[in-house]
Amino acid sequence: MKLKVKDMDIATGGPLVVILNQKDAMKYDIHHMDRIKVIKNKKIETVVVDIAESDNAVPEGFIGMYEEVLNSLKLKNSDMVSISLARKPLSIEFIKKKLDGKRLAKKEIDQIVWDIVHNKLSESELTYFVAACYTNLMTLGETLLLTKAMASHGAILKLNKYPVIDKHCIGGIPGNRTTMVLVPIIAAAGFTMPKTSSRSITSPAGTADAMEVLAKVTFPIKQMKRILDKTNGCIVWGGSLNLAPADDKIINVEKALEIDAESQLLASIMAKKYSVSSTHILIDIPIGSHGSKVKSRSEALRLKRSFETIGKKLRKRVKVILTDGSQPIGNGIGPALEARDVLWILQQDKRRPLDLEKKCIDMAAEIFSMVGVREGKRKAKSILESGKSYSKMKEIIAAQHGSIFHSEQIKIGKFKHDELSPKSGIVAKIDNLSISRAARIAGAPADKASGIYLYAHVGSKVKKGDRLFTVYSESTRKISFARESLKSMPPFLVKYSGATK
Amino acid sequence: MKLKVKDMDIATGGPLVVILNQKDAMKYDIHHMDRIKVIKNKKIETVVVDIAESDNAVPEGFIGMYEEVLNSLKLKNSDMVSISLARKPLSIEFIKKKLDGKRLAKKEIDQIVWDIVHNKLSESELTYFVAACYTNLMTLGETLLLTKAMASHGAILKLNKYPVIDKHCIGGIPGNRTTMVLVPIIAAAGFTMPKTSSRSITSPAGTADAMEVLAKVTFPIKQMKRILDKTNGCIVWGGSLNLAPADDKIINVEKALEIDAESQLLASIMAKKYSVSSTHILIDIPIGSHGSKVKSRSEALRLKRSFETIGKKLRKRVKVILTDGSQPIGNGIGPALEARDVLWILQQDKRRPLDLEKKCIDMAAEIFSMVGVREGKRKAKSILESGKSYSKMKEIIAAQHGSIFHSEQIKIGKFKHDELSPKSGIVAKIDNLSISRAARIAGAPADKASGIYLYAHVGSKVKKGDRLFTVYSESTRKISFARESLKSMPPFLVKYSGATK
Repeated sequence: MKLKVKDMDIATGGPLVVILNQKDAMKYDIHHMDRIKVIKNKKIETVVVDIAESDNAVPEGFIGMYEEVLNSLKLKNSDMVSISLARKPLSIEFIKKKLDGKRLAKKEIDQIVWDIVHNKLSESELTYFVAACYTNLMTLGETLLLTKAMASHGAILKLNKYPVIDKHCIGGIPGNRTTMVLVPIIAAAGFTMPKTSSRSITSPAGTADAMEVLAKVTFPIKQMKRILDKTNGCIVWGGSLNLAPADDKIINVEKALEIDAESQLLASIMAKKYSVSSTHILIDIPIGSHGSKVKSRSEALRLKRSFETIGKKLRKRVKVILTDGSQPIGNGIGPALEARDVLWILQQDKRRPLDLEKKCIDMAAEIFSMVGVREGKRKAKSILESGKSYSKMKEIIAAQHGSIFHSEQIKIGKFKHDELSPKSGIVAKIDNLSISRAARIAGAPADKASGIYLYAHVGSKVKKGDRLFTVYSESTRKISFARESLKSMPPFLVKYSGATK
Repeated sequence: MKLKVKDMDIATGGPLVVILNQKDAMKYDIHHMDRIKVIKNKKIETVVVDIAESDNAVPEGFIGMYEEVLNSLKLKNSDMVSISLARKPLSIEFIKKKLDGKRLAKKEIDQIVWDIVHNKLSESELTYFVAACYTNLMTLGETLLLTKAMASHGAILKLNKYPVIDKHCIGGIPGNRTTMVLVPIIAAAGFTMPKTSSRSITSPAGTADAMEVLAKVTFPIKQMKRILDKTNGCIVWGGSLNLAPADDKIINVEKALEIDAESQLLASIMAKKYSVSSTHILIDIPIGSHGSKVKSRSEALRLKRSFETIGKKLRKRVKVILTDGSQPIGNGIGPALEARDVLWILQQDKRRPLDLEKKCIDMAAEIFSMVGVREGKRKAKSILESGKSYSKMKEIIAAQHGSIFHSEQIKIGKFKHDELSPKSGIVAKIDNLSISRAARIAGAPADKASGIYLYAHVGSKVKKGDRLFTVYSESTRKISFARESLKSMPPFLVKYSGATK
């Protein structure tokens, strides 16, 4: 059957979908969600069928196409194409198998990941896969296969170096910008650290957002390699590199129900490390009850064991540390405020956040011990104090086409609101979620200069009327929205204490 | 935020979805799959957000709307609307609970069904629910709650009569048009039988398709009641009545993986019976290895027990019979050919299919025994033979605005192909799937006159060159397509037998 292309001018964001007129569909016995082949010259693409309910959308004789299909077949409005019936993707059967509680073999997991990467599955089919892995837990063996499949169906950064250092933090804690301190320390010590980071989805800033205040973070993989050759380290946005692309599609579907199967979490992180050829990986699991991904020590310990086992099977050295995730780390929250904290540490400015500095030194020491460097803590400190890591950071910023090299160059939001302590006492609790939410409402991460700056942490003594934190924003309206949010969900709990009198 | 409506001219077929421009979404911190409220005057609708990847689809300042949202809020192109952030539907939490293997309470199941009926769930969220019920089987108690919730969130036909008879066949067997014989027999005996039937999805004909050869089948519920008042029986299409509408949406999602959770199957059937106030329900479970829904006796027996338990809890009399589903029942396959079989039985024409007649008499006898009528078999036979059921059928056809009252008025496809037996022997097997497929390729159910007519059943003696069946179609091209399909998947297995020599 020949049909005329109608460009629907919409992207599905993934699945390859076309729309047929109801009459055409009936004529050829094609149903909603059936697969058909669309043929143009010698190019063939298999797509999912949706049936238009009105003739307005897709008239008889036409085939409506979303952007992904048009791109894949290089088609434009009014082109003629042929269609024919096609089978369902092979992976449907394997997804059903997993849903039935059975164990998947290598080639089955491989096929599923291939179909995900190539947009062959409908949203519903992909959801079944995620639900199946969530209810019928994958074995560590399956998770390992999933990790390898996700990495191999994507771009790979090949590095002829050893060791190649990497780190990952299981997120959810505001501030906590360790990557931007660690990379220059490790690279200054002569080790390679090809760090890819994410942008924020629901937090006030991802590492890529904060690094973008200083330099460019979007590079093709070849250029990333050139930066590494020059400086030993980089801090780039992983999203543009096409590393383990199945992962993002899976995460999108998980978001609907806010579930996160352990196998997905493990595979997601390890696949990306595998893709950049890391050999030594430090994983930070912050434990906290509110906002952090891991809520309890027992959950963290189970995850730690799983990471270590997968690491061993992938022939990577993996070390997992459990850290305190009960409150924000560092003082700045929001891209510019976090980048400033980082530069203050590297410049050894007296305004630097000591909690973040200490955490970075501890993590650097862990990495040094993994690669056999003795007295890692002292070494990390000396690299920091001697200014070597600051010099390295300036090299990296320059290599990443940046122009902000000093904390004084960073612009912070021009409007602000100071939140004062309602009483004298000790800070007993800081709610991560409430702080993050207010920082986002103030404009972070889209407005890089917006966010929150903390003057106190848990355990700090404060007097009535002392500043607890400042909200920065580019607009007074956002400041007042953020204040409303803070009123309904106060982030600081100050408790009276005899000692502070 | 105020936005201008852009009519996308597409229906989603369910979920309420709008599309925002990327810049607008970023400005207000709205993400893919978030919920927002769309407000026009005093009407509010909560919808799922999709983000446009290009400005072509939805420019900044616009909000793209699919048909379901436009209809719900009575909006048209270029109207202005306000939007604000909304929470996720309550049922998301309950779906997650079921996915975590926990038991759902009445109000939780009720909320899920309400959200399904009102299109509040995205395709992915609905899929999670189906997957959850499939992997973490619902208890019979939960299934009962699901049945009641599906029925109550839909139209209800109230009848002040007792008993109200109903029947259902767990499908998959070609031919098998028992409803169109049973309804006139039962109604002629003075009982009420408000039968709603489905159209074909993947078979050559559903009961509604076959009945439509003789009369109209699409009626609003009020008119269905008027037909029943006049004739005691009706055979109408259930699809237009809005009975248990959640069911169709669930079935749509199940199709993706071809799964059918037992709890869904039970709830789906019983909810529709509940909606039309049936008090006595006969359920036919044909058992067959190929094409029929139930493949084994043990599976059928388990299902039988579940139906009986649910029936008891719903205070309905439910009887379940297990029948032979290993081959087609009746001779005609396709709407017109099946309708002709039915009229031949009612007219007691000598060409009538005796296997179908016998099955209908047996089923009528079961129904009679349920309502306390003695010697049901003899009674059913006498109603048939006396012509009373034929008269009743003519009444029903007239009440349903029909004009075909006699088998001679039915038109059968003008092109045909006779399939001959390749050898002498006994028919050992007839493949339901292969017969159905060829009948569909010949044009059924869309071309009502197309289909297949069988001259032999399993056990029939045939000579080499005897006609096994005829394929009818409205087009010679479809005849040759059907022949190709028959060649690749021959439906008849004829075995040499000494006795036929």
